[in-house]
Amino acid sequence: MSDIYKKSVELHERLRGKTEITNKMDVNSKEDLSLLYSPGVAEPCLEIQRNPERAYDLTIKNNTIAVITNGTAVLGLGDIGALASLPVMEGKAMLFKKFADVNAFPICIDCNDSNQLIDTIRRISPVFGGINLEDIKAPESFIVEEALQDLGIPVFHDDQHGTAIVTLAALINAAKVVGKPINDLKVVINGAGAAGIAIAKLLRCFHIDSELCVSVKQLIVADSKGAIHRFRGDLNKAKTELIKYSNFDDVDGGIHDIIKGADVFIGVSKGGILSKEDIQNMADNPIIFAMANPEPEIMPEEAFAGGAAIMGTGRSDFPNQINNVLAFPGIFKGALKARAKTISTEMKLAAAYAIATSVENPTKDMVIPSALDTSLAQRVADAVEQAVYDEIKLEEEIKAEEAKLDYD
Amino acid sequence: MSDIYKKSVELHERLRGKTEITNKMDVNSKEDLSLLYSPGVAEPCLEIQRNPERAYDLTIKNNTIAVITNGTAVLGLGDIGALASLPVMEGKAMLFKKFADVNAFPICIDCNDSNQLIDTIRRISPVFGGINLEDIKAPESFIVEEALQDLGIPVFHDDQHGTAIVTLAALINAAKVVGKPINDLKVVINGAGAAGIAIAKLLRCFHIDSELCVSVKQLIVADSKGAIHRFRGDLNKAKTELIKYSNFDDVDGGIHDIIKGADVFIGVSKGGILSKEDIQNMADNPIIFAMANPEPEIMPEEAFAGGAAIMGTGRSDFPNQINNVLAFPGIFKGALKARAKTISTEMKLAAAYAIATSVENPTKDMVIPSALDTSLAQRVADAVEQAVYDEIKLEEEIKAEEAKLDYD
Repeated sequence: MSDIYKKSVELHERLRGKTEITNKMDVNSKEDLSLLYSPGVAEPCLEIQRNPERAYDLTIKNNTIAVITNGTAVLGLGDIGALASLPVMEGKAMLFKKFADVNAFPICIDCNDSNQLIDTIRRISPVFGGINLEDIKAPESFIVEEALQDLGIPVFHDDQHGTAIVTLAALINAAKVVGKPINDLKVVINGAGAAGIAIAKLLRCFHIDSELCVSVKQLIVADSKGAIHRFRGDLNKAKTELIKYSNFDDVDGGIHDIIKGADVFIGVSKGGILSKEDIQNMADNPIIFAMANPEPEIMPEEAFAGGAAIMGTGRSDFPNQINNVLAFPGIFKGALKARAKTISTEMKLAAAYAIATSVENPTKDMVIPSALDTSLAQRVADAVEQAVYDEIKLEEEIKAEEAKLDYD
Repeated sequence: MSDIYKKSVELHERLRGKTEITNKMDVNSKEDLSLLYSPGVAEPCLEIQRNPERAYDLTIKNNTIAVITNGTAVLGLGDIGALASLPVMEGKAMLFKKFADVNAFPICIDCNDSNQLIDTIRRISPVFGGINLEDIKAPESFIVEEALQDLGIPVFHDDQHGTAIVTLAALINAAKVVGKPINDLKVVINGAGAAGIAIAKLLRCFHIDSELCVSVKQLIVADSKGAIHRFRGDLNKAKTELIKYSNFDDVDGGIHDIIKGADVFIGVSKGGILSKEDIQNMADNPIIFAMANPEPEIMPEEAFAGGAAIMGTGRSDFPNQINNVLAFPGIFKGALKARAKTISTEMKLAAAYAIATSVENPTKDMVIPSALDTSLAQRVADAVEQAVYDEIKLEEEIKAEEAKLDYD
């Protein structure tokens, strides 16, 4: 067992739980008891019964989210089960607290069926102001997230959208550094799992009403069998969806073919699949985000030898670490503040731009902030919160416009 | 709205959640991140996958319980729903922390069906070292608790057993004060809901192998229709169960009849149902625990006027407050320490005796410790922990004995 793993076990044994639940006020007197608990507590209960929105003023709901998994797709470990995934979920909860002062509690659900997951999450949702889905394997992760969008609180699958948001943030700055407009980039995404699909969608999220918009015109997504296009007969539902967003010319071929001439390679696949020659075959000044963990699709040294202009990975020991922690704490903080009912595309875009613009002068080795930047989450939260208000305002304007039309 | 209710709402508005989740260690460096989260965290995960018991060494499971309700029988409020019950559950979590340093998280389940409750609790159980069921209406509370006894962690319905344990503790001392042996007391319990039934069971929990034992021979339980006996044709399952434990002479009659000659009245029914005359009709030096809330079955002044020797209520503004908070924090603390799989009768008895004996010199006005006694939970925990070890030892002795018999 390598040093870091041994030290991690020792630290976990010492802590016996990385988080704890603490009281925000001491209970010292009969009066405290009667206000915080029986009989006084009856009145806050009744206020919430009369008006459920009051739960946000009177309970932990306003700043508490659940980090929910069933342990079927944990880190690089795969299906290790609900209980064994708890150390990861506790770690995630720590990051929520550290970076955004959001209270996150791990819920590890011992169940693999989508419908049962949906029922369970729905039933336990009252306490929470938001739900971060984590490390649930596809297709259940897609099915569960989609089904729960009507829950009235944000339900966000971080492996999809967190990764997509941070990747977009890095791409915005990388495009600036190499001097190419983002929407003119020819982008290849290798990997059509949860993250790859979410990245593709966010790169094609163009909203006519938004100042923030991304609309990469030349985008190809590949899975292990090569480019995804209309004539592939072997696509699941999520991959079929991709045809709407990408590869409008139905380019066929393996990754080594389709990478030729591309400006950007985004890897969410597996380690070591690219060579120096692949990079040489790309357009001038190519951008490489090789995010497979722990071994990237190509190591930085080799990518630079092939002519890479900018290199990002998921690892902390190289520059440009593309890490979800840049996104999720601020996104939930902002969503909770605005009492958002979902995490909309506008909110995701706002988060990506907030992360990107927090780097004042992007350079080759700094297209994204440090994962330990403690001031970032508040910027992201502010941007996300504003995006919620902007959307509400826009909806109201559209309604007003429609009402006017009705009268015309 | 009376002063206390108004002040409680104001306090809840100020706190916006009475508990929070805090990190037990700061995350300041890349090394911290790599040990507490990715990639180091993979190894604690794998250790738990190989041996689930390791979760107690490596995660919050060792000291975290769920306070679970569906909000169908909250305080005196009845069925107010899952969300509206959250302030009560948060309050309960505060008490767990304050008195026993146990981390308790509220889970409010939006669901009334027993089977769905059972499924949901079973699925979310991996994170928790114990489950405190709270304010779930009968018969679901009975059904759910019974069905979950195989979960491998203690599942304890506090409205039943917490109340029973504290009542027994008070009765042990009250019997001493009036100089009557506890098992010779003639006891009448008024109220055959969750609490009444649990009290009856604990007063008849005689174990041949235990030094701690209670076996009240003359015990009658009454519901709103009077004494429960074999010839009542209108009993539900839980009340039918009671016939095994009580009223061996099949005494019939309403509460005003059956209280005649009784040494002890235990009320878990409703306010104001007894009069001075009822107390006068009891045996000499009667013990009255009138626990209906907020109005007791009889007010202390009237009970004393009728000749009561000892008076206990559920209220903090009179002596002898019979309050569950004396029991549940220590019970779970001890059960977690010993990694108990259930809360056995032995553990309940040990808790009751620990509470009772913590009052050094019981008097008429002090048969039970103060609800704010911060040293009590540790005594209860120690007794409960020891009870677990004693039971394990006893089981081993019985097995050894049986093995010997096999060879004889």
